[in-house]
Amino acid sequence: MEERIKISMLLDLYEGLLTDKQNNIMDLYFNDDLSLAEISEITNTSRQAVFDTIKRCEKSLLNYDIKLKLFSRNEKLKQVKDAIISKLTEIDENTRNDEISLLKIEIEKYISELI
Amino acid sequence: MEERIKISMLLDLYEGLLTDKQNNIMDLYFNDDLSLAEISEITNTSRQAVFDTIKRCEKSLLNYDIKLKLFSRNEKLKQVKDAIISKLTEIDENTRNDEISLLKIEIEKYISELI
Repeated sequence: MEERIKISMLLDLYEGLLTDKQNNIMDLYFNDDLSLAEISEITNTSRQAVFDTIKRCEKSLLNYDIKLKLFSRNEKLKQVKDAIISKLTEIDENTRNDEISLLKIEIEKYISELI
Repeated sequence: MEERIKISMLLDLYEGLLTDKQNNIMDLYFNDDLSLAEISEITNTSRQAVFDTIKRCEKSLLNYDIKLKLFSRNEKLKQVKDAIISKLTEIDENTRNDEISLLKIEIEKYISELI
């Protein structure tokens, strides 16, 4: 996975552990794709301070994930969900049971809320 | 839920964010149920320092959980698992499908690994 996408996903998982100011800069950079100069202007912070914040936060996010492993836990949960849905689809093809089709929709919904 | 049990569960979730020394003291107190005096002797730390560490770590754990909400996320995952199993049991009673029985065992196993 591209490093930039990974950092953006880690930001979703660990934003609670960053300050509001850090979250704002990280969000502008990784989600809104603004340049350091643009972020510097918007946040009224020097370009160097914006750069330092991004680098420090990247390091913190990677470090949090080494300790809490929420990223791989989420990936595992997606795999489990896909495996359950796939198995239910197989069973459904053999039994044509409306209850199973409904259950598949419920599982998609409930597990997606946790990811 | 009793506060002591909750702290013990939070310790499982966030131990990665505490230091080895903090984890050791918290483990001896919350999981092995030792007294402050016993922990003080084992860790070669004053009774007051053991007490302070426990209070500080309790506060940190509760604070991490306000920010990351892993405790309620885990509870939700357990509920989702139970709901899926219960629905499959219902379907199974109507269809008597071996595949469904096997799937229930797999779901128990895979989701339990994530909790």
